[in-house]
Amino acid sequence: MPVKLSAPDASSLLPINGVTLGYAEAEVRYTNRKDVLVVQLAEGTHVSGVFTQNKFCAAPVIVCKNHLASSGKIRALLVNTGNANAGTGESGLRHADQSCEALSVLLGLNREQILPFSTGVILEPLPIDKIIIGMPAAIANAKADNWLNAAEAIMTTDIVPKGTSRQLMVGGQQVTITGMSKGSGMIHPNMATMLGYVMTDVVISQSALDAIIHYAVNKSFNCITVDGDTSTNDSFILAATNLAGNAEITEDSADFVILRDAITEVAVELAQAIVRDGEGATKFMTIQVEAGKDGRECRKVAYAIAHSSLVKTAFFASDPNLGRILAAIGYADVDDLDVNAISLYLGDVLVAEHGGVAASYKEEQGVAIMSEAEILVRVVLNRGQAEATVWTCDFSYDYVKINADYRS
Amino acid sequence: MPVKLSAPDASSLLPINGVTLGYAEAEVRYTNRKDVLVVQLAEGTHVSGVFTQNKFCAAPVIVCKNHLASSGKIRALLVNTGNANAGTGESGLRHADQSCEALSVLLGLNREQILPFSTGVILEPLPIDKIIIGMPAAIANAKADNWLNAAEAIMTTDIVPKGTSRQLMVGGQQVTITGMSKGSGMIHPNMATMLGYVMTDVVISQSALDAIIHYAVNKSFNCITVDGDTSTNDSFILAATNLAGNAEITEDSADFVILRDAITEVAVELAQAIVRDGEGATKFMTIQVEAGKDGRECRKVAYAIAHSSLVKTAFFASDPNLGRILAAIGYADVDDLDVNAISLYLGDVLVAEHGGVAASYKEEQGVAIMSEAEILVRVVLNRGQAEATVWTCDFSYDYVKINADYRS
Repeated sequence: MPVKLSAPDASSLLPINGVTLGYAEAEVRYTNRKDVLVVQLAEGTHVSGVFTQNKFCAAPVIVCKNHLASSGKIRALLVNTGNANAGTGESGLRHADQSCEALSVLLGLNREQILPFSTGVILEPLPIDKIIIGMPAAIANAKADNWLNAAEAIMTTDIVPKGTSRQLMVGGQQVTITGMSKGSGMIHPNMATMLGYVMTDVVISQSALDAIIHYAVNKSFNCITVDGDTSTNDSFILAATNLAGNAEITEDSADFVILRDAITEVAVELAQAIVRDGEGATKFMTIQVEAGKDGRECRKVAYAIAHSSLVKTAFFASDPNLGRILAAIGYADVDDLDVNAISLYLGDVLVAEHGGVAASYKEEQGVAIMSEAEILVRVVLNRGQAEATVWTCDFSYDYVKINADYRS
Repeated sequence: MPVKLSAPDASSLLPINGVTLGYAEAEVRYTNRKDVLVVQLAEGTHVSGVFTQNKFCAAPVIVCKNHLASSGKIRALLVNTGNANAGTGESGLRHADQSCEALSVLLGLNREQILPFSTGVILEPLPIDKIIIGMPAAIANAKADNWLNAAEAIMTTDIVPKGTSRQLMVGGQQVTITGMSKGSGMIHPNMATMLGYVMTDVVISQSALDAIIHYAVNKSFNCITVDGDTSTNDSFILAATNLAGNAEITEDSADFVILRDAITEVAVELAQAIVRDGEGATKFMTIQVEAGKDGRECRKVAYAIAHSSLVKTAFFASDPNLGRILAAIGYADVDDLDVNAISLYLGDVLVAEHGGVAASYKEEQGVAIMSEAEILVRVVLNRGQAEATVWTCDFSYDYVKINADYRS
């Protein structure tokens, strides 16, 4: 079960002026399941995207990058589950193009104004006919208050749909931000994707939007890991319809930081939701590394801990097996690391310092903290001012079960 | 159960002239278990060592390095299981020194002539008294044909003892090589160590021995992974007693390569045995990456596959889930990787090329190969002449069970 995460109320996911969402049950892989989503964006919408760095990136990722670069006037997103269109070579690219072409005809747009996204089984041809057949239904039922249905339509092995909204005053106008995401592994193997979509009606320049997406992703989706595997399909999209009536936000605007932080907050909530619903997760862990020389080494240490199968199984067992955390810090490939200077905390309990167990530490303190559903691990490197935070989940029997049984 | 690995016959582990091995049941952590080993080496023995690069390395690792650097005349090895003497700060170093001091008195040596090794629980003080009390027994029962007892004495969660021997002609004389190792994870968490010891009677210069150990480790212990975690205590020792009567082997000797390759063969067998007896292992996988630009990128690709939890669970499930392997190649951080140029084989079956499934591939071929206990994964990068091989095991329910339940 997800760790402290439940499905949002439909009413809590606020419509965005200029955005409609429609879905179809197109039987891409399963029956009786929403599996095609069409998001329509008003004319004048600015769109930014960040994509997986996996060299085996899926065909739709390549097409998304091309369309963002060439068109500049994205008007619709097309998402299918059930098939990732990854590891599909030339025919995969053709299928991604064809799906954009088909939707553009139905919506009276150019092909380059569509961004395609696929998530599901890798290495199988995209059932392009089924997706095209599903499009009219997804256009017919499109409406602005369809976010919960949309969040359900992009789920693969996720247990709950993930979405959230914020409203705030920007430039004297109320603006709305709504987003949704799906996991449920950082990569989910065949169901191979993290997808995130955040929309807002704020009036904002393209360059300010681009600045915000990179800031927000670095504070959110780039700080999570379930199993350390990087998907072929990971995509995050930030779109602004420019309909809120505020004075245009640029990077120099007084309210730029307020807006940026609100969008980042939404992205963090969506990213954390993926971890809370991680495959087999029973614990949600925050790995916070402080007082490092630079952010890079802090991230190395945080990810070494977050990726360690031994640390993750110890958390699953509620076992304060601190040696595993120290060992992970030790192999994090940080130059000249003085392990005797490091302090390790579980929650607010000092558990290790001077290269060994803290004199004040008592095993029962560790056991108490490890039995919680949410756990903070703090590593203080004591060699600088930088810090980094990573969120992850534990490693359970169910992780093996889900990933060993998945395709059958 | 270990994958195609059983305990060696005592008679197959050949004595080395100048080496005696004795053990004690010292109750370091458990009763009725060999847990202290003393290996005595004849005067004039040359010794080389390679140790973990983990910054949180254990106290005995630090002491080993110091003694190798300062003495040059190592005469005994002292190994205990049940406690790793890691994460033990200043007192850990004192305990490691004290154990060497105590053994040196009993053997009439200097403290710097002893190399100490510990494996077992991290973050708990070494029960130095028990180890010292056990030493006389381990000296009293020392003999040359005690290798199987010695291999048992260094086991922690290993299911079977690991050892092997070779004999060959070097410089017109028969020489003998015998080694032993223990795992059973690359790191086993609390039982936190890979240990390997190879001894030979060959007459060899110190610099030739040093050259061989680095060559052999790079071809063996540096090519294995169980869970990707690097231990605080990993140690590999190569010792030559110089008693075989051959003309001294130097790096220029005609037989240098023959000897080097025989020692490497022993190291490979010992390293592979650790993987075959890896925690929860049901499959033994060879990941062979070919035609890369350099060895470094080949190793990156091989380790990305070997470390992927998703790949390892797919192997456990006997599921030819090839997308997971392609995804791992894709995130292996190799510059300018052209995924369309890569060929992927399972055994001798071509399964993927041109960025997708090979036209000739049939699922039942993959299923047949994945159901084997030993599986070869070949990745041909088609961009150079370099290659690398890594051995690993699958990821099973038992891995989680062993590591979640371990301390209790």
